[in-house]
Order: sequence, then C-alpha cells, then structure tokens
Amino acid sequence: MIDLYSSATPNGRKITILLEELGIDYNPININLNKKEQFTENFSSISPTNKIPVIYDKENNQIIFESGAILLYLAKKYNKFLDQKNYWDIVQWLFFQMAYVGPMLGQAHQYLFYHQGKSKFAEQRSKVYTANVYEILNERLSKNNYICREYSIADMAIWPWTARFERHQINLKDYPNVLRWYLLISKRTAVIKGYNIIGEFSEIPYP
Amino acid sequence: MIDLYSSATPNGRKITILLEELGIDYNPININLNKKEQFTENFSSISPTNKIPVIYDKENNQIIFESGAILLYLAKKYNKFLDQKNYWDIVQWLFFQMAYVGPMLGQAHQYLFYHQGKSKFAEQRSKVYTANVYEILNERLSKNNYICREYSIADMAIWPWTARFERHQINLKDYPNVLRWYLLISKRTAVIKGYNIIGEFSEIPYP
Repeated sequence: MIDLYSSATPNGRKITILLEELGIDYNPININLNKKEQFTENFSSISPTNKIPVIYDKENNQIIFESGAILLYLAKKYNKFLDQKNYWDIVQWLFFQMAYVGPMLGQAHQYLFYHQGKSKFAEQRSKVYTANVYEILNERLSKNNYICREYSIADMAIWPWTARFERHQINLKDYPNVLRWYLLISKRTAVIKGYNIIGEFSEIPYP
Repeated sequence: MIDLYSSATPNGRKITILLEELGIDYNPININLNKKEQFTENFSSISPTNKIPVIYDKENNQIIFESGAILLYLAKKYNKFLDQKNYWDIVQWLFFQMAYVGPMLGQAHQYLFYHQGKSKFAEQRSKVYTANVYEILNERLSKNNYICREYSIADMAIWPWTARFERHQINLKDYPNVLRWYLLISKRTAVIKGYNIIGEFSEIPYP
C-alpha cells in the first residue's frame, strides 16, 4: 500500500492520475495548503522542503518527495508509462516540465492570478514565458500524438498544468496541437478520476 | 566522444563539472547566449526548447537536453556519483534542484540583478523564496556533509547555483552549513576545472 500526501494542485494531480492509470490501491491524505498543513512538524519529517506531493511506499519502506521523482519511481516500479526504448526522451521532457513548465506557469499563477495588478513588469514577463511554454508544447505536439511516442509520465506531468489555462490567460484554440492533446488526455477514465481524488470537487475545464 | 553544447551558466557548469569528475574526453561547444545562438535552426534541431546544455553522445547516438536528465544519463552510464543504495534520495534532491532551487534563484537573478528596480513586489517575493532555498539547504546540510550521503550529482546540480550567491544578495555566513559545503566542493580539482571550460574565465566567488 502507498500513502499519498497531496493536494488539489497540478503537482498533486500528476500523482493521482498516474496511480489511477496504474490501477493500484493507495491511501490519499489531504494536506490542506490553506491551513498551512505542509509546515507541520509531522509533514516536515517526510517532506524536508515542505512541499506536496509525497509518497510513502510501505512495501519498500520508501518515502519520496518531488512529483517528478515520484512519477519516475512509480513508473519504474510498475514498469508502465516509461517505455524503455524511449526512456531518455521521456525523462528529458519530464525534467523540462519540472524545470520550466511548472515554474514558469507557477509564476503566472502568482503574477496574473493571485497578485494581479501588483506588478505590471512581472505580469508582462509572465505572459512572455507562459506563451513560450505553450509554443514549445504546440510545436512538439505537431509531431506526436503525445509528448513522447506513447502516452507516458511526461504527459501526466504536463497535462495538469495546462488544465490551468484560464489562470494563464491562454486560449487553447491559439495552440491547436496542445488543444487536441489536452482533449485527448482529458477523456481518459483515469485522468477524470485522478483529477478529483483529493480536495473539493472541481470540473476539468474545457476551452 | 561526447559533444557538449553549453554556456558559462549554472546549468551549463553542472555538466562540465560532472564530465571533469568522470575524467572522460568531451568536446565543449560554446553556445553564446548574448548572440542568441540558442535560437539558431541548427541548435533548435537538437534542443527543441532552445535551452542549454545539450549533449550528443556519439557512442550511443543519443542526444539529451535538460541538465537534470544529462546528469542522470552520465551518472548511470559511468556508474558514478549516483550510489544505488541512495538512488531515490539523490534523484529527489536532483528534482528539487531542477524544480525549485534553479527556478527560484533564476527569478532572483532577473528581479534582483538584471532588472533591479523594475518591480519592488517581485523583488520582495524573490528575496523570500531565495531565503527559503538557502534555509532548506542549510537545514539539510546540518545533517550531512553532502546533500545526500556521499558526494553525488545532487551536489553538482546545486553547487553552481549557490556560486551565484552575490546575485542572490545572500551572505553565505548566514547559512553556515551551506558555507561549509560550498567551500568543501569549491576545492575539488574537477570543480575548479569544470567551472571554467566554456566562455570567458571567471573566478569562483568566495564569501
């Protein structure tokens, strides 16, 4: 059994989507970020960076934090969604999500949504980087149905971030390949279920 | 032989440091970011995200982008600096560098250094997140000599970012465990050499 400490955020949803795709039993535990539960002593002991998600795999007595590491760990353990022939292609796009898609869109959430109006300069920068993220994905998805050859943890890492397109002030119709891919993935049973495991129910947004 | 396309940046230096630690032959190729060489058609063909570093491992006919993926690839290929007993510990801290240390300190470079004075709000946010990065590292390094049990690619990923402490407006003496670790690593022959493979010579900064 796997304990999953998580929240209803893009990084949290990556893991519930993968767990649903794998079809394994797990125990979801909500860490309420509004109540700052990520800073409790208990949570700090498993997450020294005070971030969600974290898993505790009791079978292997293994705690893992950082959503990218958790995706890799689970995909390796169950030998799914990380095709060995395309291993490094998947891993490099997973790192791209972690190092650029997430941080840049996360900045957009701050400057364009939570703190809109506080800094025109930072808003403008966020818009440029947000557009760059969608342009790179749109170009990549012009060549493939998925981010890599087959549906993989790279898609599961990126898709929950693009599901926040409204906060990014992005019209997905301006990025037709991203839109096609977004809709394709949003119809998967595991994605629909994994989107709403933790926290209050919310609809997957449709453009 | 490995071709390395890179620049004199923290992400670039991760790879030259690892290659020097491994003691293998490689061919460094400078991508001049000031001349926007990362946007040429030639470079785009190996780096669809237009970012450095990228390697082309001719032995395996393998191109890899994203510094975190390159570190993992080389450490696995040469079976060094990625101890199997501590594999997931190293991988999770590597992802933490890629997803938080780099992006947050990168934002600090923008708002506190390149664009200082353009947004008080973004500067203030950058200072909070920068301090958080150093606090997390300082706490981690209170328990270990290195980020994980032994010197690993997690150290090589994080160290070049902390070498920009001046741009972060950080006094390393305020983070004594980070300071001890920073000095320990900065004395390594491979780090000294790897710091100055590409671009104009610059001294490793000492606090």
